[in-house]
Amino acid sequence: MTAFQDYYPEHLAHCYGCGRLNEHGYHVRTDWDGEESLTLFTPRPFHTAVAGFVYGGLLASLIDCHSTGTAAAAMYRAENRAMDTLPAFRFVTASLQVTYAKPTALGPELAIRGTVLEVTRRKVVVASRILLEGVVTVTGEVLCVQMPDSFASAASALK
Amino acid sequence: MTAFQDYYPEHLAHCYGCGRLNEHGYHVRTDWDGEESLTLFTPRPFHTAVAGFVYGGLLASLIDCHSTGTAAAAMYRAENRAMDTLPAFRFVTASLQVTYAKPTALGPELAIRGTVLEVTRRKVVVASRILLEGVVTVTGEVLCVQMPDSFASAASALK
Repeated sequence: MTAFQDYYPEHLAHCYGCGRLNEHGYHVRTDWDGEESLTLFTPRPFHTAVAGFVYGGLLASLIDCHSTGTAAAAMYRAENRAMDTLPAFRFVTASLQVTYAKPTALGPELAIRGTVLEVTRRKVVVASRILLEGVVTVTGEVLCVQMPDSFASAASALK
Repeated sequence: MTAFQDYYPEHLAHCYGCGRLNEHGYHVRTDWDGEESLTLFTPRPFHTAVAGFVYGGLLASLIDCHSTGTAAAAMYRAENRAMDTLPAFRFVTASLQVTYAKPTALGPELAIRGTVLEVTRRKVVVASRILLEGVVTVTGEVLCVQMPDSFASAASALK
C-alpha cells in the first residue's frame, strides 16, 4: 500500500518513528480504512516493558506518529486535495496523552486506529487506540499542529 | 553513580527504556538531586523528529521511564526504606501526558527532572520536565502504579 508517510517531503521524512528515510527508525506507515486511519506494526523482540509485554514508550510513539500522519491526511481531505499535491502538509505533536488500559502482549502484530476529532486551520486533534488481536490495550489523544516554518526550514538547511 | 534502576529485580530489568539488562535499550538512569529526581541522557544522531531536533517519541519515553523510576524511589522514601531492601518496588505507567513546549535541539545532553506530586499505597504521580541547556522544552505528568502481580509473575516465568 501507499502510506500517508510516503508523501512527506524528503527533508521532513527522517523521523525516527515514521520517516521512510530514517534507516534506524520504526517506519510507521498509515493509511485510511474508511473513516478511520490504520497502522499495522509488529514490535521487535527487544521492545519489552517486562518480558512478554510491549514497552510503553514504543506504544506512545506509535500513537504519536500514527496521529501526526492522520492529521496530515485529514487536512488534505478537509481541503479536498490529493496527498501528492503541493503545498505538503506535515504535522508535529503539541501534546500527547496516552492511557495504558491493560498490558500489551509482545509478539502479535498491533493495529493502531485513529479517528479525527477536530480539524481547524493549523491544528488537528486525533484520538487513537492500539488493538492487540481485536482488544484495545492503549488509548491516546494527540493535538497535532502544522510544523512551524522555522522548524521545517532548519531541517531543510541541515539535510 | 548508582541509579534507581540498578535496584530493579533482575526479571524486571529488561525495559527497553530503563532496563539495565536490555542490550538494545536506552538505559535511562535516574537518581535524586535533592528533592527532585534527575536523569541525564544524550540522544543518538538518528533520534530525529526532523533533522536537527529530537524525536518526540523518545522524549515521551524519557519522561515515562524517568517518572516510573522516580515513583519507585519515592515509595522507598515514603516507607523510609533503603532501595536495596525487599520487597522491591517496581512501577508501570497507567497514563502519560506530554506537552512539547518547544522543539528540542538534537545534540546536547538532556536533563530530565522530576517532582513527586502524590504518593498513595499503590500509586505515585510524578511531574517531569526535559531541559536543554537549562531551558524547559517538554513537560509531562505520569500516573505510575505498582506493577500488578500478574504482570510481574508472567515476566518472571518468561525469563
